[in-house]
Amino acid sequence: MKYPNGLKKKFTSYNTYANRGMSLESDIGSSNEYYLLNDIAVVYKKPTPITIAKVDYPSRVDAVIKEAYFKTPSTTDYNGIYKGKYIDFEAKETKNKTSFPLNNIHSHQIKHLQNIYNHGGIGFIIVRFTSLDETYLLTIEKLTKFLDNNRRKSIPLEYFKENGYFIKQKFRPLVDYIEIIDKIYFDGGNICQL
Amino acid sequence: MKYPNGLKKKFTSYNTYANRGMSLESDIGSSNEYYLLNDIAVVYKKPTPITIAKVDYPSRVDAVIKEAYFKTPSTTDYNGIYKGKYIDFEAKETKNKTSFPLNNIHSHQIKHLQNIYNHGGIGFIIVRFTSLDETYLLTIEKLTKFLDNNRRKSIPLEYFKENGYFIKQKFRPLVDYIEIIDKIYFDGGNICQL
Repeated sequence: MKYPNGLKKKFTSYNTYANRGMSLESDIGSSNEYYLLNDIAVVYKKPTPITIAKVDYPSRVDAVIKEAYFKTPSTTDYNGIYKGKYIDFEAKETKNKTSFPLNNIHSHQIKHLQNIYNHGGIGFIIVRFTSLDETYLLTIEKLTKFLDNNRRKSIPLEYFKENGYFIKQKFRPLVDYIEIIDKIYFDGGNICQL
Repeated sequence: MKYPNGLKKKFTSYNTYANRGMSLESDIGSSNEYYLLNDIAVVYKKPTPITIAKVDYPSRVDAVIKEAYFKTPSTTDYNGIYKGKYIDFEAKETKNKTSFPLNNIHSHQIKHLQNIYNHGGIGFIIVRFTSLDETYLLTIEKLTKFLDNNRRKSIPLEYFKENGYFIKQKFRPLVDYIEIIDKIYFDGGNICQL
């Protein structure tokens, strides 16, 4: 999400979600642009879900929303297509140095990713440990495995290192998660054709 | 989109898009719910894209958007997964009895669907002629074929009858577009597995 100057700071008062995601979000945004322009993949971020309560009409052409509320997203932030396959993921940042607090992700978002997996899609989360400047990709398979075997409220960094994939910062794209998806699911080749 | 009482009428003054789509939108919404509950497909409507300009914080927990504007969508309204495949479509209603005015769909939405097709996905539009109460599915392949061979600003109903697929109203799901997608692309079987 982009906010006019001044707004971002205000958000910290309550919407840590929006802020944490900010810089990883812009990195992924520019990476998606790169994938799109280079015909590699088509991935978009979904708009922020809101409930509109009041709209004004100063003229026939302009409508101004005067009252609206943020809604809890029912799915993840990102989805799209790579080599004919449906891909779906959520991206989060944490300042935590040792683990990723699970309250960063809504349970229904995890359920959604599991649902995608059950339908033959590719689901994962991208987590950036901002203090360490380390970004990892963890597939929904491995995330589910963790949740099935742990009662912890956070995923240790170690689990990401052992079961996830480190995404090294590149020049372009900044966050090359497709390269990793390709290795995991396509082994560099196209396994799914119409 | 849902609007409080009174708002919907106001919208007709400018946002014909929102209104035209209303009842087909709810039919597709309940159909997607049916697909989800019965584990047939996972398809969601994207939130309406807006630009937030002003947000108030009466408390730490509640944020109220006080000023926001509707943005032109960069993609289509619906996307999801069916049998591992990425599917993407736009749904529109028209009161026109003889043809579907192309100004109902943004050119970049058509380009997006062509992009999806080029990446091995399934793209289409669902058009309901409200006056005739007839709903058709037209694949992006056939839509592109029409645009390549016509300078017309609308697609004749005949073209939908000859090149599209009539979606008969069912009890559940109301608009069974997956049944048609299955016939066209999967021939009833699953052609795409991880």
